[in-house]
Amino acid sequence: MAMIYKDPWVLKENKFDHLHLGKTEAIMSQGNGYMGLRACAEERYTGECRGLFVSGTFNKFDETEVTELPNCADMTEMEIFLNGKLFSLQKGNIKSYSKELCLKSGELKRSIVWCSDKGERYNLSFLRIVSLKNLHTIAQKVTITPLSGDTTLSLACGINAQITNSGSQHFSEGAKRFYEKRYMQLVATTTESKIDFVFSTDTTLSVNSKKQIAMNRRRIFSKYDAYVAKGQTVTIEKISTVHTTRDKQTENLSLEQLQEFALKNLKQQVTLGYAGILQDSKTRWDELVWQNIPIEIETDNIKDILAVRFAQYHLQIMAPAHDNRMNIGAKGLSGEGYKGHTFWDTEIFALPYYIFSQPSTALSLLQYRYLSLPGARQKAADGGYKGAQYPWESAWLTDGEVTPLFGGADIVTGLPTPILTGQLEIHITCDVVYGIWQYYKASQDESFMREYGYEIVFDCANFWASRLQEGSDGLLHINNVIGPDEYKDGIDDDAFTNHFAKWNLLLAVEYYNKLQGSDVSDVFERLKGKISLDCKLWEDKASKTYVPMPNERGIIPQNRTFLDLKQIDLTKYKNQTQVGTIYKDYNQHQICNMQVCKQADVLLLILLMENLFSPKAKQANWNYYEPRTLHDSSLSLSTHSILASDMGQEDLAYELFERACNIDMGENMSSSNEGIHAGSIGGIWQCVVFGFAGFRVTENTIRLAPKLPKHWRSLNFYLWLKGEKIKVTVTHKGVDVSKEGYIAIPLNSSPF
Amino acid sequence: MAMIYKDPWVLKENKFDHLHLGKTEAIMSQGNGYMGLRACAEERYTGECRGLFVSGTFNKFDETEVTELPNCADMTEMEIFLNGKLFSLQKGNIKSYSKELCLKSGELKRSIVWCSDKGERYNLSFLRIVSLKNLHTIAQKVTITPLSGDTTLSLACGINAQITNSGSQHFSEGAKRFYEKRYMQLVATTTESKIDFVFSTDTTLSVNSKKQIAMNRRRIFSKYDAYVAKGQTVTIEKISTVHTTRDKQTENLSLEQLQEFALKNLKQQVTLGYAGILQDSKTRWDELVWQNIPIEIETDNIKDILAVRFAQYHLQIMAPAHDNRMNIGAKGLSGEGYKGHTFWDTEIFALPYYIFSQPSTALSLLQYRYLSLPGARQKAADGGYKGAQYPWESAWLTDGEVTPLFGGADIVTGLPTPILTGQLEIHITCDVVYGIWQYYKASQDESFMREYGYEIVFDCANFWASRLQEGSDGLLHINNVIGPDEYKDGIDDDAFTNHFAKWNLLLAVEYYNKLQGSDVSDVFERLKGKISLDCKLWEDKASKTYVPMPNERGIIPQNRTFLDLKQIDLTKYKNQTQVGTIYKDYNQHQICNMQVCKQADVLLLILLMENLFSPKAKQANWNYYEPRTLHDSSLSLSTHSILASDMGQEDLAYELFERACNIDMGENMSSSNEGIHAGSIGGIWQCVVFGFAGFRVTENTIRLAPKLPKHWRSLNFYLWLKGEKIKVTVTHKGVDVSKEGYIAIPLNSSPF
Repeated sequence: MAMIYKDPWVLKENKFDHLHLGKTEAIMSQGNGYMGLRACAEERYTGECRGLFVSGTFNKFDETEVTELPNCADMTEMEIFLNGKLFSLQKGNIKSYSKELCLKSGELKRSIVWCSDKGERYNLSFLRIVSLKNLHTIAQKVTITPLSGDTTLSLACGINAQITNSGSQHFSEGAKRFYEKRYMQLVATTTESKIDFVFSTDTTLSVNSKKQIAMNRRRIFSKYDAYVAKGQTVTIEKISTVHTTRDKQTENLSLEQLQEFALKNLKQQVTLGYAGILQDSKTRWDELVWQNIPIEIETDNIKDILAVRFAQYHLQIMAPAHDNRMNIGAKGLSGEGYKGHTFWDTEIFALPYYIFSQPSTALSLLQYRYLSLPGARQKAADGGYKGAQYPWESAWLTDGEVTPLFGGADIVTGLPTPILTGQLEIHITCDVVYGIWQYYKASQDESFMREYGYEIVFDCANFWASRLQEGSDGLLHINNVIGPDEYKDGIDDDAFTNHFAKWNLLLAVEYYNKLQGSDVSDVFERLKGKISLDCKLWEDKASKTYVPMPNERGIIPQNRTFLDLKQIDLTKYKNQTQVGTIYKDYNQHQICNMQVCKQADVLLLILLMENLFSPKAKQANWNYYEPRTLHDSSLSLSTHSILASDMGQEDLAYELFERACNIDMGENMSSSNEGIHAGSIGGIWQCVVFGFAGFRVTENTIRLAPKLPKHWRSLNFYLWLKGEKIKVTVTHKGVDVSKEGYIAIPLNSSPF
Repeated sequence: MAMIYKDPWVLKENKFDHLHLGKTEAIMSQGNGYMGLRACAEERYTGECRGLFVSGTFNKFDETEVTELPNCADMTEMEIFLNGKLFSLQKGNIKSYSKELCLKSGELKRSIVWCSDKGERYNLSFLRIVSLKNLHTIAQKVTITPLSGDTTLSLACGINAQITNSGSQHFSEGAKRFYEKRYMQLVATTTESKIDFVFSTDTTLSVNSKKQIAMNRRRIFSKYDAYVAKGQTVTIEKISTVHTTRDKQTENLSLEQLQEFALKNLKQQVTLGYAGILQDSKTRWDELVWQNIPIEIETDNIKDILAVRFAQYHLQIMAPAHDNRMNIGAKGLSGEGYKGHTFWDTEIFALPYYIFSQPSTALSLLQYRYLSLPGARQKAADGGYKGAQYPWESAWLTDGEVTPLFGGADIVTGLPTPILTGQLEIHITCDVVYGIWQYYKASQDESFMREYGYEIVFDCANFWASRLQEGSDGLLHINNVIGPDEYKDGIDDDAFTNHFAKWNLLLAVEYYNKLQGSDVSDVFERLKGKISLDCKLWEDKASKTYVPMPNERGIIPQNRTFLDLKQIDLTKYKNQTQVGTIYKDYNQHQICNMQVCKQADVLLLILLMENLFSPKAKQANWNYYEPRTLHDSSLSLSTHSILASDMGQEDLAYELFERACNIDMGENMSSSNEGIHAGSIGGIWQCVVFGFAGFRVTENTIRLAPKLPKHWRSLNFYLWLKGEKIKVTVTHKGVDVSKEGYIAIPLNSSPF
């Protein structure tokens, strides 16, 4: 096994495998919400996927593609020759190797003893940081020590803007420039959205060197030749910055001014040096996360501690907390997967972490949904509906739907499979509302609701009111959708969607009634004329909405036909080590006609709306659906782990938690190639806080009903509630909640 | 040394070096004028440059770039796992290796014995052909024999359209499709010029295999899993085709029809199989080249024989003889260098080969210049001139000038160096006229002249008449140009340009007078109203044009200031092993002010216009300019070799010929990375036929004044003259010329 989980702060790989580069590139990626940098090696390898992504800088390659987050110029590449031999782990011999990401400092480190095929030995270390303090800065420090004799060092590095998104080039090449015979700068502009990027970099060597400069197409590089004696250590520091004309801080600058600003920032960062940048960033990590909202687990299983920190680390670097015009991509900023688009993963899987840990980030993410109402209204209108319908995949605020139209090959027809989610997976609209509802419950942030929240809830209710269709039974139905279980498409009366739609309507009614006559009824003034506020209509539609309820066996039908579909032996797929194995045997049409779930709609419904069904009904549906669920979505495991905790199946809860942790952090060396799984990582936190600590916010109370894993001695974490931070301590004996000092409370009770 | 020259038909490399992949990728590239395919390995390597180029399919990435020949989808890639180990020459051990291109058959072959890092040995061979018969077909045949035990084979291959031109993506992704669970097809469309490309491929294995299909972004692949016993040989045949909506043969088809046509052609080629495709192609090579216009050298120096065949091979595959809307790129179709653009290299360096060896190809290349008159007229008009001014770099017929505006970094200022050739290197207009004049002299193709040639000559004369400026001396001058010696820019009265401009005017006068009163004077009817036909003006302008003549020391000043410039010690640069070394010490401005030539304008002038100066003047200028010339253009060597032959410096002539051969075929492992040097390769033929055989066509005669290299016993070649093919045999005793039987003639006499 190449992954090592021995240090509770350090994610480590101790074996280099050129076939599995994507794994650590993604899971050890660094960032700060402004940008994300894949942890590619300095030296290049076939099969690598170098990646630098700047939040919210979407661009559309052409009319046949959807907008996506462009893969920017690379500034981390270093071509190193030692005594004329190219340093590459594919050549010569690796005497020792480790690659590790320290979650506490955010520092990436590779330590290598390498023997060239001439038999010469070298000690090399590669350190890297993406600053959490200065969001534009990437710093690298490389040390090389020849162990067996003197060496010549030849180093080429600079800015390489030949990078593409799997072949799609999003940038026009702009100015290239050497300043003061030292600083390199390259400008690139996105082809359609016309965002200018300014990449700047500087390299210093600790020994004298001869320097040559070179500009090629989309590249500006410097070459350094130096001499290093045996035992002497040469240190290379490369400090790089990225600025764009989308940056809020500098949005009034012309490109020329931005170039100057970037140069100035680069010079400042160069003055700080690698050590200074690292220290600044580390301090910021402590302030924001490790000293502010640590999650402490007492257990001998270090991997569990590491996994939760891994989740916090990625939840920190993936969130563009600095700019409410941006949101979290399904792969964070760690890869090209899902094109940087925002899905329901934000509200249902990641948002709870921010709501309870960093409410200001949660607020910013929800403001993004408010700011993207124009796109949502456009999408509703395009479909002939009213109100606001959120796009399944979201990018620019005004884009509306950006889901691609086609995916991989259909094994039966040989044609590309159409992707219908953008058209049919309409539950996203309630998911956004659910996010708002959760945030409001936890924060009681009335000013957010008045400025943003109510409008979204009301206008989404307007969408549902127009989307519901009267059936021959006189009830209102929702036909032709995809639920969270994406194995099924074009289905009618999806349990999850119908229940949520009704809930959205009722929530609008509740808020409407609450506002009426209250001192905040001026909200209506602002919204009148802007959106329809027909409370009677919502009430009427909600009352007539058909919602699937438990049948005689207690089973809630996932949709109108599910319970009648054919059942097959799923053993082979339940034990799958890779996602999507069922698609190797069946095509979408065939899977659509079998009782098999990617994730179980009904169970997710039970989790999110816990008062809807009786404990007995919950158990019956758990027993029915879990065996039919392949967990073929990275989002499925946390849902099922929390429910297992709720139902007292503690071993299963822990097993599913472990599997959720392993999605990115585990031994599967290719599952993260296209980036980490943002929703799944939010799910890790949910397994711990919602599952093991049994935490929920209900109307005016919180509930803590812990089911601590057997081998965890204690669990501590912090929660932000109503603007205050409380500390929760869970042991096998009970729960402590402190708010300005500790208050011991018994199991299952509420401090509110 | 990695390059082996032991077989007069085979270019061979016997050592794999991952740092020098570009060398054989380019010099062993294959093609047929329709397309060119770089000789990249099936397995991928960092530093490789996979390349497939289809003649005349130019596209412009964006407004900041110039149009270029797009690098197409790759169909040659194969990912091969043997017992779970990726086949790569960077891993395990190479027990034996050779890569060779057989010039006679056009077949590329790699033969490898490889030992995986598990210690398992395999025999592998990789054969490849680009058909000279069916211009759309690429065929590959791979054999693998496990030598030390049974093995599992896993092969992934298909169509990869993620390829870019150094980061610039020229294609929108189109339909992807598997037909009959077997044939793969991918459509891609150039983003600006909207040419649809249809890539199709099929793979068959000689053993049973399990197959999986996959479509990713810009990729369609199949994966085959098979079992191969020890000693058993598995054969993989992959047949691929390329068609575009620019193909003349199918220009009336819709895209859908073209897809069907492509599939049909693929099936036919698959039926033929690798062996059949190879045989068809080989037969065509013999018909067109090796049996039709062979050049035979009797010598013990096999490399000389190989070099001349190497030249013929590349001259055959680089020329789009099938379509007169296309011309030869400066790198042929063997790389991204010079963006597929056509330069003066065609007329001055490559065209003579076609004129005397394949007149129909020469005709097509000159028709391209006729068809691009609209662009040439636009360029003249854009500069405020009359007539037709050919662009320095040419692509689409109507584009006019397509020279990029900036090149590499200025080492002094750190800014990109402006490229002024597009604006200033105006001699290209006479070079085209010179090409026409040469073709006409050799072919006496009056119908070409009437339809195309005269119009070009006259309208280019119109350009010169408007470009000449009266000086204070009352004479006409040409200021602010770049001559063939590109070290100098913005110079006045360049010897080459002024003499050629005057010659163009006088040629127009000569043709005008000849036509007048002749039975072909209807040419005037066609041209009247279309272009200005003011013979008096041409005559008057020619008579007043200042042309630099030998000074008191017999030296013709290269330009108005050259002889006054500072002189420096050039030894360091004369001995350079790479081009452009002088730019590492001086910038363009500094070089412009020194007596140093990239290639000597005056000497090229003397070569091309051999009656202009006395033998004494020629010698004086040779003595003056050659030592000041760095041959820092691949075009310089052949000029100087031929002149050395002319002047009886036979050793120097041979040395320069050898150096010319080595530009691509030699041991410099990086000089051909961006593609072969089309002009230089034309120059190899010129060294032999114009230099060593001393062949020239003058008005109504040919001259043969051989200076055979000492160690060549004889030289035979064929020449097309006035529509007839003659055979020339040169020995140290004399020359034989046969035209329907042999006629022995003495040295220096003419058969006409």
